[in-house]
This record gives sequence, C-alpha cells and structure tokens, in this order.
Amino acid sequence: MTDQLPESLRWENQQLYLLDQRLLPHEIVYVAISSLPAAWEAINTLTVRGAPAIGIAAAYALAQSMKEVAAPAFTATLKKNAEYLKSARPTAVNLAWAVDTLVKSGLQNPDVAALIQQAKEIHRADIRLCENIGRHGSSLIKPGMNLLTHCNAGALAVSRHGTATAPMYHQHQRGVNFHVYVDETRPLYQGARLTAWELDRSGIPVTLICDNMAATLMARNKIDLVLVGTDRVTANGDVINKIGTLNLAVLCHHFNVPFYVACP
Amino acid sequence: MTDQLPESLRWENQQLYLLDQRLLPHEIVYVAISSLPAAWEAINTLTVRGAPAIGIAAAYALAQSMKEVAAPAFTATLKKNAEYLKSARPTAVNLAWAVDTLVKSGLQNPDVAALIQQAKEIHRADIRLCENIGRHGSSLIKPGMNLLTHCNAGALAVSRHGTATAPMYHQHQRGVNFHVYVDETRPLYQGARLTAWELDRSGIPVTLICDNMAATLMARNKIDLVLVGTDRVTANGDVINKIGTLNLAVLCHHFNVPFYVACP
Repeated sequence: MTDQLPESLRWENQQLYLLDQRLLPHEIVYVAISSLPAAWEAINTLTVRGAPAIGIAAAYALAQSMKEVAAPAFTATLKKNAEYLKSARPTAVNLAWAVDTLVKSGLQNPDVAALIQQAKEIHRADIRLCENIGRHGSSLIKPGMNLLTHCNAGALAVSRHGTATAPMYHQHQRGVNFHVYVDETRPLYQGARLTAWELDRSGIPVTLICDNMAATLMARNKIDLVLVGTDRVTANGDVINKIGTLNLAVLCHHFNVPFYVACP
Repeated sequence: MTDQLPESLRWENQQLYLLDQRLLPHEIVYVAISSLPAAWEAINTLTVRGAPAIGIAAAYALAQSMKEVAAPAFTATLKKNAEYLKSARPTAVNLAWAVDTLVKSGLQNPDVAALIQQAKEIHRADIRLCENIGRHGSSLIKPGMNLLTHCNAGALAVSRHGTATAPMYHQHQRGVNFHVYVDETRPLYQGARLTAWELDRSGIPVTLICDNMAATLMARNKIDLVLVGTDRVTANGDVINKIGTLNLAVLCHHFNVPFYVACP
C-alpha cells in the first residue's frame, strides 16, 4: 500500500537526509547532508534526482547552510551559497526556482527559522500538487487497463505520490486493479531501478520491459494508456523529459494510444 | 579495413571452431567444437548466434558428428543427430534448413566427405549472398550519410560481410565516408557488444546509442537511412527480426526516413 512508498528526502532534527537513489533497489540508505558541499555533491552525482525532489532538497540544504551565519554576512552568504548550489545541476529548473525562492524570502527576512519554514512550504506545496494530479488524473485509469510509463516520475522523483504515478497510487488505494509496464529507461535504468521498485513495493502489478519493446506491445493492443512525467513544459506546450519520451509519443500517435504528461 | 573482420566460425583440420560471441568485445576466443553435445550447447547458449551463422555451424557440426559412424547405422544416426541439433534452437529457421539439407544429401550419398563438402557449399553460398547484398545495397549509402542499424546483422551473424552491414563494408572499401549509429539492442546488447565492435574494428566511424534515442535523432534530421537484417521474411513480406525493429520502422514512417531490410 502507499504507506510503503519511499521518501526521497526527510527533514529531521533540523537536518536534511537524502535517500541515496544510486543504491536502489538493493539498499535503502539515508545519507545525512551535513554541509553545503555535501548537498552539492548529492545533487551533482544523483544521490537525489527527479526535478521536484532536487528543488526541495536544495531548499532545505540552503536553509540549513545559513544556521551559523552571523547577521552582517547573512544576505551575501545566502546569495553565494545559492549560486554554488545551483551550479550542481544547471539544467534542473526546479533547483534554481527553489533556491531563488529562498533567497527572495531571506532578503526580506534574514532569519534561519523563516528559511526553514519556506523550505517546508515548498515541500508541502509539492505534496499538494502531486495529490491534485492523482485526483484529477485518476479517471484516466480504468479497471483492467495496461499502462506504460517511462523513467521515474514517482514518489522518488517528487514527494509522496509522484506526478505520473499519482493517478496510479490514487486508483490503487481505491481498489482499482490495473497493470503497469515500466520502460527500463536506458542509460541509467531509472525505470528498472526506481519506478518498477516503488510500484511493486506498493502492491501494483508491474512488468519491466526494455525501451525497445513498446511498439510490439502496442501493435498487439497491450497498452491502453501511456503516462509520463516531465522535467519542464515550455510556454508553447513542448514537453522536456527523459530521452525516450519522444519515441513513446510517436508510437502512441501511430498506434492510437492515449499519451498523457503529468504536470503540476 | 575488412581484413580486420571477425569470423564467427572456422573449419580447420576437419574440425569446427566457433568464436565465443558471449565474450566479445573483451576477449576473442575460438572454441573447438569436438562433439555433437558441444555443438548443441554452443547453439543453445549463444556462443554462436545470428541466423545464417547458426545454420553454417550446425551443418559443419552435423557432418563432423558422422565421422566415425559405420555404414549400417549411417542414415539412422544422421537423422537422429539432425533432430538433436535442431532442438538446440527450435526458432532458428536456418538451423533446421541447413541440417535438413545435409540429411537429404546424406540419404542420397551416405559419405562423410560428401557431407563436409555440402556444409562448405552452404558456407560459400552464404558468403556469395552477402557479397550480393553488399553490391546491390551499396548505392543506398552516399558520402556523408548517417546510418542507423539495430542488433547484429554483421560479419558475426553471418559470414564475411554480413547482411545489413554488407553495403557498409562495400562502400567503406571503396573509400566512401559515412557514419553509423548503432542501437545497443537490449536486452542482450548485440549492437553494443558486436556491431559497434566489428564496424569500429573495420575503421567505420560508429556512435553507440541507447535504443530509446532514435526518435530524437530523427527529429533533428540526424538519421538518413535505417538498415537492419532479418531473421526471416514471411511469404507475405512480413519481417521477423529482433525486438525493437518495429519501433524503428514506425519511427522511420513518422519521420520520413528510408527503412531497408537486408535479406538474401
């Protein structure tokens, strides 16, 4: 059930802990992030990944880094630490957004406790967004359906229910039976290592497939719906997501399979 | 150059040797096949793979297995050994075809030397077919083109120049410059381990890609031609080939990229 859902990060005793996603599915290890360079390293080397999770982790890490900074240096240090954190993964839009949100807040109210509250609010807002995706998207998933997803837009990428997986968890909780094919997602196997693992842990029936198998499944009417997440959607509606997403979209177009992008 | 081309099998001193393709690209080891069970095992566990190469190997192995069989038992043993070999990979049509060809020959002329000649003729015929594919297909490859291939329909799968790769080797020998993207070909990585390796060894510029990347490359006009082999073509023209081939065919249709199947 969904109480089995893994958390990509925790904030406990004024300290950030990250689930080391590079060790999944074999080991579940939470790493204490006790310094700003440790946070930079964790983002840069994919200990934490998934656009929203990176943003939330960065917000907590930035707040935490300001704990012992004396008042006169507060604003300058906040800005410097923010720029440093952003350089860990310059393409992660959520990272820049979350960090900039904290800087803005810190300029108005140079106080560590307020920064931590801001980070928590970013975290809570993300959970709410995922719950909304789950509620609004749930009607897409009907009993007996076979879904396909790519990469990891699940609990591990985001918080609580994930984005693409939120409607799945929502329907699963309501007792709707369905089955999910998961692309292994080369080259880093986020589908095999993360999505298949978290869905299976939640009791949702899963079949792991190679990325090149979707066309054959669709040709045999074995896929009713494709549901993926997105790193970003541009103003004109273009979707930016993991390599392989365009492949699936073209196949869906050809085989007349509905293709949905879960986006907050 | 093409004198660098690997041979999937050799017949030397009345003995079959197979290149152990499971060890490629890290080790080049030829295994002496000294018994019929050893041949069965080699076919069953993919020491030798690729439809034509399996057929040729089986023909030599069957001929070799008849060396010390006395005249009265010749036909019965030949038939029994043939059935046994075919069971190593029941889906390999070339295997059944090559073995049946030898049985037919052995029924007319129950002589080991004649069987070996028949196996050699199957081998030579395959080399001629590949040369013909190379000659007829070469005009598809124009200077500066970017090709894409899937799995291994190269020298390792067949003999000498391969099928899908034959036009590539033909043009490369004539000094035509082109570049080949190779799908890694999950789940067994025949593209990554075999095709990329044999093309690179021959001096043809190669880029190895994940199977899910083709759509993005085609959308950016980076693929001019897709060229694959086939396990079999049915009477109505359907192509039976490695998982992922249909995926490429649909993408080619969508992005208007020529898609060719090399078939003897």
